Amino acid sequence: MAKELTSRAENYSQWYNDLVLKADLAENSAVRGCMVIKPYGYAIWEKMQQTLDKMFKDTGHENAYFPLFIPKSFFSREASHVEGFAKECAVVSHYRLKNAEDGSGIVVDPEARLEEELIVRPTSETIIWNTYKNWIQSYRDLPILVNQWANVVRWEMRTRLFLRTAEFLWQEGHTAHATSKEAIEETTKMLDVYAEFAENFMGVPIVKGVKSENERFAGAIDTYAIEALMQDGKALQAGTSHFLGQNFAKAFDVKFTNKEGKEQYVWASSWGVSTRLMGALVMAHSDDNGLVLPPKLAPTQVVIVPIYKNQEQFNKIAEKANALKKDLQDAGITVKFDDRDTHKPGWKFAEYELKGVPVRIAIGPRDLENGTLEVARRDTLEKQSYPDQHVVKNIKELLDNMQNNIYKKALELRESNTYYTDSYNEFKSILETKGGFIYAHWDGTSETELKIKDETKATIRCIPFNNNQEDGTCIYSGKPSKQRVLFARAY
Amino acid sequence: MAKELTSRAENYSQWYNDLVLKADLAENSAVRGCMVIKPYGYAIWEKMQQTLDKMFKDTGHENAYFPLFIPKSFFSREASHVEGFAKECAVVSHYRLKNAEDGSGIVVDPEARLEEELIVRPTSETIIWNTYKNWIQSYRDLPILVNQWANVVRWEMRTRLFLRTAEFLWQEGHTAHATSKEAIEETTKMLDVYAEFAENFMGVPIVKGVKSENERFAGAIDTYAIEALMQDGKALQAGTSHFLGQNFAKAFDVKFTNKEGKEQYVWASSWGVSTRLMGALVMAHSDDNGLVLPPKLAPTQVVIVPIYKNQEQFNKIAEKANALKKDLQDAGITVKFDDRDTHKPGWKFAEYELKGVPVRIAIGPRDLENGTLEVARRDTLEKQSYPDQHVVKNIKELLDNMQNNIYKKALELRESNTYYTDSYNEFKSILETKGGFIYAHWDGTSETELKIKDETKATIRCIPFNNNQEDGTCIYSGKPSKQRVLFARAY
Repeated sequence: MAKELTSRAENYSQWYNDLVLKADLAENSAVRGCMVIKPYGYAIWEKMQQTLDKMFKDTGHENAYFPLFIPKSFFSREASHVEGFAKECAVVSHYRLKNAEDGSGIVVDPEARLEEELIVRPTSETIIWNTYKNWIQSYRDLPILVNQWANVVRWEMRTRLFLRTAEFLWQEGHTAHATSKEAIEETTKMLDVYAEFAENFMGVPIVKGVKSENERFAGAIDTYAIEALMQDGKALQAGTSHFLGQNFAKAFDVKFTNKEGKEQYVWASSWGVSTRLMGALVMAHSDDNGLVLPPKLAPTQVVIVPIYKNQEQFNKIAEKANALKKDLQDAGITVKFDDRDTHKPGWKFAEYELKGVPVRIAIGPRDLENGTLEVARRDTLEKQSYPDQHVVKNIKELLDNMQNNIYKKALELRESNTYYTDSYNEFKSILETKGGFIYAHWDGTSETELKIKDETKATIRCIPFNNNQEDGTCIYSGKPSKQRVLFARAY
Repeated sequence: MAKELTSRAENYSQWYNDLVLKADLAENSAVRGCMVIKPYGYAIWEKMQQTLDKMFKDTGHENAYFPLFIPKSFFSREASHVEGFAKECAVVSHYRLKNAEDGSGIVVDPEARLEEELIVRPTSETIIWNTYKNWIQSYRDLPILVNQWANVVRWEMRTRLFLRTAEFLWQEGHTAHATSKEAIEETTKMLDVYAEFAENFMGVPIVKGVKSENERFAGAIDTYAIEALMQDGKALQAGTSHFLGQNFAKAFDVKFTNKEGKEQYVWASSWGVSTRLMGALVMAHSDDNGLVLPPKLAPTQVVIVPIYKNQEQFNKIAEKANALKKDLQDAGITVKFDDRDTHKPGWKFAEYELKGVPVRIAIGPRDLENGTLEVARRDTLEKQSYPDQHVVKNIKELLDNMQNNIYKKALELRESNTYYTDSYNEFKSILETKGGFIYAHWDGTSETELKIKDETKATIRCIPFNNNQEDGTCIYSGKPSKQRVLFARAY
């Protein structure tokens, strides 16, 4: 294969970087920390986006669009929010350039300085709650269930394609409610939407839970998250949903008159997933030959490659391939017939393996004679001869089967890398040798959590929902604990 | 009606502003020149986006995503491009804020100054051609047919919702070709796509043509445009497609090896439409009662309003309404059954008129008895009683009929406001009294064009394609001319 990847065993991190580049998903741009999402990568993101967008609409949400820029002063309104976000952001200070007087190019026009600097949004709670102030007067105006698809910027010092970039694409839901109960229900509901998307579409099993205070969103009362395990034993936070209480309503003075005629502050949630999910998708399933994509998110689900020695053979194969393509398309399957004569079948096979096309069908002269097709599945790399009869039904079943198998494989990987320990030494040894999810007792203090993080780089990923209550002692402090929490090193 | 609009006759400009606000399309934000696109406005934009996106994909294009920021120096590379764009842009100078030492809030951290300022993209030719340099080596890498959906920022001094905003949403296609001929074909093809979208979906008749040098895109060899006429007699440029020649390839040193093994610069096109189309849609069709939306772009095509005096009546009507809703949905029509008991039918009628829902069906007790429905169409405001039989077929036909009628009405308006004149005095008088499209002879010089613009505020909207060639004399200079060009005052 022309485009050889570093193997996962050799260097997982390099394997990931190689794969993202060689599979044409994304690349670094001329602007520090900002990526270019290439057409193939963007096509996968579009599939994710369309699926999620439908799920949001099915749960009663509408899309809207709010400004890219946020006045600097807005950040100071919510005390913990500014601590979390204002440190790393792009600041717009001027609104004009001009030709340099010495003819050397263009320079910033010092006359065109903004009175108040604008921040490129790192997240939009502030500008949105400033807007909601005008939208909400009465309980009749509630709930507001709005989502935004947008780009955001956080000035990260160390970036990695998809996983951590200065600019990324995401969606952010921002909802407003009359009661705390409703807002919490919304927060939970959207976490469930994310969990369903991760498991049923991405094929990535997740643990749902609540974040510890340290890991909470800046400005939230509670942050719920879904946590996934990657093949290298590191965790990846795949989506978060925040119960914001009345924090932003108070910061932006958003009140409503309730049914009893009393003025109250509005309750809020916000929730988001980003192009980071692309990183999770790659790292959860792919192998040393390239991408492995779950059929539900693959831009091309089936590719047909002709194998022939002369034009006459090609013509016959093309006839069969085009008929098959049409039948599969009619069944709602996305198909490509790669009839290019500029590349050999072997090259094409390697290319589609690299790109993670779930099913590859090869048709050669012998298949014409025998009424068969050679079908290769990307997840297991198994090849099998299929009869022409019932081929659409069989391919549909195969795709379903693969979708399930990819999930099952990821679940098995997680199960075999999940540990329970009561010893801090064992805890450290697991992290050093194997990684994975570790359930351990914790005394509930930030102090202990931060010390464990300092010493092991592991953080509390979440306190799982419906967690088993059991008496134990904190692995670090030895103090009493009522439940195990989920630790891991994380992306 | 609670939300009364200024009438068009009284003040067209105020009518537009009122309508955009009161129909919940968009509003101004706390950030100068940046708008909030509200859910109803965004739902219309999504319809436009989805339709265009399909048309782009059907013509072989793929989506990708490029950085929001562009290094300042990139703009200097293409001489005319910097003249056109660098003057009005948001400049990012710093990447961090910090707490003010006096505790007064947050301030820009002077330590975190960027070595080179970044420009928030006003358009992406420069960053994209800098990227294409790495994508293109051989003729085999061509053509590149890429589109991007994105936000862009141009620091406009006078802004109006949708028509001219500092930040707006758009798509920008950027294609790379081996030959000049191919690039020109692409430029034309995409103008045709825009024209088809404007006429067949937006119901807005357009004139296709080429821009004069003054109105050309900064960096283009030729700019093609579609020009529409609004109800107040002003023109609106609804889409542009640019043949960029080798200008950006030369600026960013993008060469390819052709089939003969020779190195050549790559040829380019770019093309875009924006949320400005929302302004065109509103101004082309709407009336003093509110929005008039072409059925193909209406988020809700049919609304059903029950008219009842008691719960028993409501139950029977709701049964009929829900069955009808399902039948219409099964036929691919988007329907809402407004069963709210918090608002009276009259209020709902006014509301849906304001929002431009194409078809309103009212069902009352008498309709139950008679087996009828009361159907009102938004474009003509006509009401008619429909029998229950074949109602889905009849509504489908009505929607098609309305789509055509809206276009026809706009076309008639344009025809009756299109003038041919050979006298500069008459030219001025038409502009002062009626506005509209004026076909007049022009000597082909920028000097004359700018003088006419200075004196009348009218510009050359385009030199129409397939223009009739006829001898004449320039209305301004009296010099010889071979063809009439299209003048108008424009948004």
